[in-house]
Amino acid sequence: MKAIIITIGDELLIGQTVDTNSAWMGAELSNLGFDIVRKISIHDLRKDILEALSEVTGKSDTVMITGGLGPTSDDITRQTICEFFGTKLIMNNEVLAMVTEMMKKRNFPMNENNRRQAEVPESCRVLKNSAGTAPGMWFEKDKTIFIFMPGVPYEMKYLMREQVLPELKKRFTSQVIIHRNIMTYGAPEAKLAELLEGFESSLAPEIKLAFLPAWGIIKLRLTGTGTERRLLEKAMEENVSKLYEIIPHLIYGENEEPFEVVVGNLLLERKQTIGTAESCTGGNIAHLLTSIPGSSRYYIGSVVAYDNKVKENILGVPVEVIGKYGAVSEETARLMAEGARRLMKTDYAVATTGIAGPDGGTDLKPVGTICIAVASEHGTVSEKYVYGNERISNINRFSIAALSLVRKQIIVH
Amino acid sequence: MKAIIITIGDELLIGQTVDTNSAWMGAELSNLGFDIVRKISIHDLRKDILEALSEVTGKSDTVMITGGLGPTSDDITRQTICEFFGTKLIMNNEVLAMVTEMMKKRNFPMNENNRRQAEVPESCRVLKNSAGTAPGMWFEKDKTIFIFMPGVPYEMKYLMREQVLPELKKRFTSQVIIHRNIMTYGAPEAKLAELLEGFESSLAPEIKLAFLPAWGIIKLRLTGTGTERRLLEKAMEENVSKLYEIIPHLIYGENEEPFEVVVGNLLLERKQTIGTAESCTGGNIAHLLTSIPGSSRYYIGSVVAYDNKVKENILGVPVEVIGKYGAVSEETARLMAEGARRLMKTDYAVATTGIAGPDGGTDLKPVGTICIAVASEHGTVSEKYVYGNERISNINRFSIAALSLVRKQIIVH
Repeated sequence: MKAIIITIGDELLIGQTVDTNSAWMGAELSNLGFDIVRKISIHDLRKDILEALSEVTGKSDTVMITGGLGPTSDDITRQTICEFFGTKLIMNNEVLAMVTEMMKKRNFPMNENNRRQAEVPESCRVLKNSAGTAPGMWFEKDKTIFIFMPGVPYEMKYLMREQVLPELKKRFTSQVIIHRNIMTYGAPEAKLAELLEGFESSLAPEIKLAFLPAWGIIKLRLTGTGTERRLLEKAMEENVSKLYEIIPHLIYGENEEPFEVVVGNLLLERKQTIGTAESCTGGNIAHLLTSIPGSSRYYIGSVVAYDNKVKENILGVPVEVIGKYGAVSEETARLMAEGARRLMKTDYAVATTGIAGPDGGTDLKPVGTICIAVASEHGTVSEKYVYGNERISNINRFSIAALSLVRKQIIVH
Repeated sequence: MKAIIITIGDELLIGQTVDTNSAWMGAELSNLGFDIVRKISIHDLRKDILEALSEVTGKSDTVMITGGLGPTSDDITRQTICEFFGTKLIMNNEVLAMVTEMMKKRNFPMNENNRRQAEVPESCRVLKNSAGTAPGMWFEKDKTIFIFMPGVPYEMKYLMREQVLPELKKRFTSQVIIHRNIMTYGAPEAKLAELLEGFESSLAPEIKLAFLPAWGIIKLRLTGTGTERRLLEKAMEENVSKLYEIIPHLIYGENEEPFEVVVGNLLLERKQTIGTAESCTGGNIAHLLTSIPGSSRYYIGSVVAYDNKVKENILGVPVEVIGKYGAVSEETARLMAEGARRLMKTDYAVATTGIAGPDGGTDLKPVGTICIAVASEHGTVSEKYVYGNERISNINRFSIAALSLVRKQIIVH
C-alpha cells in the first residue's frame, strides 16, 4: 500500500518556502498504513508536471499532488492536468456558487481570477473546498489514484481531513504500521546509541529503531510493521517498557510531545501555575507555552527582561548583583526567577539569562552560555551550560533546557 | 546548469521532520545560478537509494544528497554509496583525529559509533566537517557531481558554505538568474492579482512573477533569467519601480525581510526603542523581535499579560475598563500599550489582546478577533480585525498585524 507525494512550485525548489505540506500529508498517510515511498518537488512547468505524473503512474496506489491551484496566473497546473488526463476545463456552477459566497462573506469583491477558480477538468471528481476558493480534484488512471489539492496549508488540510483521508481509509485495507516515539533529553546521540546497543540488536526484524535529534532532544522512533495489530502492539509495548528500564533518567515523554506540553500537563494535573522571566530567550518560552490550546489554565504571564533596566526595575534584581556577578550569571537568573514568581504570584517561575550570539561573548562567558533558574515554594535551583554559536539554535536549546529544568522541579516534589 | 537535491530519511517521508535542509540548499544553489529541477525524498533503504542515484546520474550537473550519515545504526547510506560507486570503506586517520578532538572538547567519551564516523569510501574526496562528526563526500560519475552531506542542518550548512558552494562557483560559469522579492501586506491574493494584471501582462518573457502568500503577507517574486547581468539587473529594477508606482501603499519591504527586521531597522535609524505588552500573542512578538541579531539595541522588554491580573497589576489597566469593555477590546489594548511604554520607558509599545482559539470565542467576539494598539509620544492608535479559526495561524497573523501597525506609526512621524 504505497503513496507518493508531489509538491509543485518554484518557491519550494528555490527554497523560498519550506515544504511543510508534504510532512503533514506524510504523517497522515503513514497513520493510515501507507508506505510513503517518495516525495518529489517540481517546477510549475508543463513539461516537469507531465514527466512526474507519468513516472508515478502505476507505481503507487495513490499520489497526492499539492500546489499550482491558486487564483494567480503563475498557476498552469490545471491546464496541464487536463492534458495528462485527456480532458478539458469546464465551469462548475456549484463551485462558482461557493466561491461567490465565500468572497461575499469576507467582504471582498468577486473578480475574474476568482471566477476562474470554479473551472474544473470535466473528467475529475471535484472535491469541494469550504476553506478556500480552489477545489480539489480526484482522478483515477492505471490503478493509481491522483488527488490534486491547493498548496495553501489549511486548505489542503481541510480537503485531506474532510474528504481524502476518509475515502482512502474505506478503499484500502491497511497493512498495520505502528510508530511509537519516546522523547529523550540529556544525552548526545552517540552516547544514547551506545546505551541502546544491546537493545537495538535484540529487536525483532519487523521492528526498527531510529534516532531523531533536534536541539538537544533525541526522539527515539520505533516502527513496527505487520498484519496482526494486537500482536504488533504487544511487541511494541514490550520494547517501550525495555527502554524505560534502560534509560529512565533520559525519557521525558512520548508521542512527540514537546516539553511545553509535558510541562503544561504536569501543571494541569497539579492545578499549579507558571510564569517566565526571560532575557536571552526573548519571549520564546512564553511563546512555546502559549502555543498550546488551553494554556491559559496554567500560564499566567512573563516579563521579557532584555534590557538590564527591566531586570532591575520590574523584576527587582538589585543593581549590585548584576554589577558583581554580571547579567549572565546564575545569581542574576535566580533573582529574576524569584522576582517573576513574586510579581505574578505563580507556583513556578523560570528565568533565563545568557548569550545567544552571534556577538556579545567573552572568554569567560562565550556565545552559547546560558544560566537558568527555577523558583518555587521549594526554593530556587539554577544551572549553567554552554552550547553553540548559532543564534536561533541557541534560543531554541536554551528554551528547551529551561523547560526541562521546570519539569524536573515539578516531578521531584 | 542544473541541480537536483535528494534528502534521505524515513522521518522526512512519514512527516516527523520537516525538510528545511532542501529549502536552504535550494536557495543557495539558486543564488549561484543553478536551476533546481527537482527535489526527491526517499527512505533510508539500499534499494531506494540506488534507484534514486541511478535516475539522476547524467541528468543534472550536480546532485546534493543529505541524511543517513549520523553515528547511529539506522544509517546504511555509506555502505550503499560504496556499492553505487564501486568502492569500499576505509578508515581515514585525519577524520579520526578530528572526531577524537571534537569529542574531547565536548567532554564526551569516544565510542565505537564515533570511530565508525571516520570510515569513508576509498574513492571519494573527503569534505572535512569541523561542525560535527560525519564528514561529507564528493564523487563524480558520468559528468554528474554527487555531494553527500550529513542531515544535521548546521553541519550541512557548514560544509556547503565552507567547501561545496565555493568549489561549485569555481567549476561552473553561471547563467544569470536574478530574484527580486517585494513584500506586500494589506490585500488578499486575488485582489493583488487584479491590481497587477496589467503589470504582469506587460512583463518581458524572460521575467516571471509569482505570488507567495503567508499569514497575510504576500511576497511578490520577480525572477529574471538571462546571460548579461547588467541588462537583466536594469530590466528587473525597472519592473520593481513599476510595482512601487502601482501598489505603494501595500509594499513594506524587499528581499524577504520579515516585519521584525523592517521595524528593527526603522528603530535603529531613529535611535528609538520598543517594548511589547502581549496577551493572545503570548510572547511571540517579543520572540520575533529578539530573533534578530543585535536587537538589544532597540528592544527593551515585554510584559506577557496572559492572565487579566497581570494586565491590571503590572500594566496598570484599571479593572473597571476590563469589566466594562472586556479584556479583548481596543480600550484594553490601548491601556496595555500605554502601561508597557510607561513601565519600560520606551519610544514605542505595542499591545495585543484577542482570541487565538480554538476555544474562547463568542458571537460578538469570535475566535480570530484581535485588538492591537501602539503607544508613542504621538499618542495611541488601535485597530481591530477578525481572522480565522486556527490557533498557530492566528498567533502569527496577529503578530504580523501588530508589527505592521508599529511600522505605520514609525514612518508616519
